Amino acid sequence: MGKLILLRHGESLYNKENLFTGWTDIDLSEKGKAEAREAGRVLLEHGLFPDICFTSWLKRAIHTAQLALKEMEWEHIDCVKSWKVNERHYGAWQSHNKKAILKEVGEERFLAVRRGYFERPPALKDEDPRLPEHDPKYARLDPALLPRSESLEDTRKRTLNFFVERIAPELAREKTVLLSAHGNSLRALVMSIERLTPAEIVNVEIPTGEPIVYVFDGTLHLVRKERPAEWRNP
Amino acid sequence: MGKLILLRHGESLYNKENLFTGWTDIDLSEKGKAEAREAGRVLLEHGLFPDICFTSWLKRAIHTAQLALKEMEWEHIDCVKSWKVNERHYGAWQSHNKKAILKEVGEERFLAVRRGYFERPPALKDEDPRLPEHDPKYARLDPALLPRSESLEDTRKRTLNFFVERIAPELAREKTVLLSAHGNSLRALVMSIERLTPAEIVNVEIPTGEPIVYVFDGTLHLVRKERPAEWRNP
Repeated sequence: MGKLILLRHGESLYNKENLFTGWTDIDLSEKGKAEAREAGRVLLEHGLFPDICFTSWLKRAIHTAQLALKEMEWEHIDCVKSWKVNERHYGAWQSHNKKAILKEVGEERFLAVRRGYFERPPALKDEDPRLPEHDPKYARLDPALLPRSESLEDTRKRTLNFFVERIAPELAREKTVLLSAHGNSLRALVMSIERLTPAEIVNVEIPTGEPIVYVFDGTLHLVRKERPAEWRNP
Repeated sequence: MGKLILLRHGESLYNKENLFTGWTDIDLSEKGKAEAREAGRVLLEHGLFPDICFTSWLKRAIHTAQLALKEMEWEHIDCVKSWKVNERHYGAWQSHNKKAILKEVGEERFLAVRRGYFERPPALKDEDPRLPEHDPKYARLDPALLPRSESLEDTRKRTLNFFVERIAPELAREKTVLLSAHGNSLRALVMSIERLTPAEIVNVEIPTGEPIVYVFDGTLHLVRKERPAEWRNP
C-alpha cells in the first residue's frame, strides 16, 4: 500500500497577527514549531516512517517537515521541494490584516474569495515588490508560470500537476510519502483525492500539525483515510 | 560551468570529547552550528547559490547543510541524502577515546589507520549493537553493502560511486552543487578530483565549516579550485 501523509504547518508569525500570508515567506512561531514536533511524535508512535518528503518552497512548510523528521530521528530521507505546493497566492491581500480587508470589501466578497472555489483576490500590479519574480528563488522560473493572485481552482491546477508528476509515482511504488504544505494547497489536493465538488470543499478545513494519512492500493485507488492523532488517547 | 561546493561539518559533540565518531550519529555542538551558519554567510557573500544539495545520512552533515542554507535564505532547493557519503566507518574504534586507542595500539598502527589509505580499524563483531543493520535507517539496505570497518580506500569506492551516479550529472548540466559531508568522505572525493596518490592524500586535511569550490567545464574537466573564505579579508 502507498501512504500519503499530509501535514499542514502550524502557527506562523503572520497567523499570530491575523495577516493574509499566501506566498509571503514567514517563519513558524514557537507554537508552530511545537506543533511540528508533536506531529513527528504522532508519526513515530504509529510507525509512519516516510520514504521521501515533499514540501513547498516556503520556510514554514520546510521547517515543519524538518522539525517533525528530527523528532522521529528520521532525517536521512530525501526532501524534494516545489513551489507548486506553495500556499494559494493571495494577490494584493498578502500581508494585509484580515479584519481590515473584511471591512473594506464586505462579508460576502470576503467569504467568496476565502472559502469559494472560483474567486481571486485582486492581483498584484506590475512593479509590486511582492511579485514572486522579484524573489531570486522564483526569478529562475518562467515568469508566465508565476501567479499574481489565485483562486482555489488555480491553486488546485498546479498542486494536482505536481501530485501526478512527482507524488503519485512514489505511491504507486507503495512508498510512504510525507507532504508538508499549506491550508489551501492541501485542501486543493484533498478535493482531488476525495473527489469533492467546489460546493463541498467550502466546508473542508485541514487541521494544523495533525498528520492525515491516505492509503492507496497499487493502482492508486484510495483505500482509506486515517487520522492517527485521534487514536492516541482512546 | 558546473560548481561543486564541498562543506565539511564543524565540531560535533564527539569531536569535543575526542572520540572516534565514524557512523555514530552524533549532532553538532553549538560551535559546530555556528561554523555551519558562517559557511552560509561565506556562500551568500560570494553569490554561491546551490541548485541542489547532497548530504550524508548523518545528522551532523544534514544539519550543517540546513543551517548554511537557512542563513542564505535559500532553503527551497532539493536535498538528496545518501549513506554513500557518510564518514568513513571506524569499526570497533567508534565511540572510543582517541588517546586510549593510541595508547592501546601504539603510534605506528594508529597513524597507519588514521592517515593511511589501505588500513582498516578492527571490524565490528556479529551482534555488536553498533552494526549499521541494527539501525532502522540502514536495515532497509542490502546488508552486504554495509561496512563493519573501512579503510580510506573502502570509503573512496562508495563515495566515488555516488559522485559518478548522482553528482557528476548535475555538474555536467552546469549546476551548482552543495555537498555537505565529512572529513574522510570528502578527502576520498578530493583524491579522485585532484588525482592524488595514496601517498599524497596522507597530508590532505579538509578544513571544517569552510566551503571549497571546484569548478568544472561541461566535459567535467576540472578548471580551478577556489577557497572563497580566503577572499573575505584581503
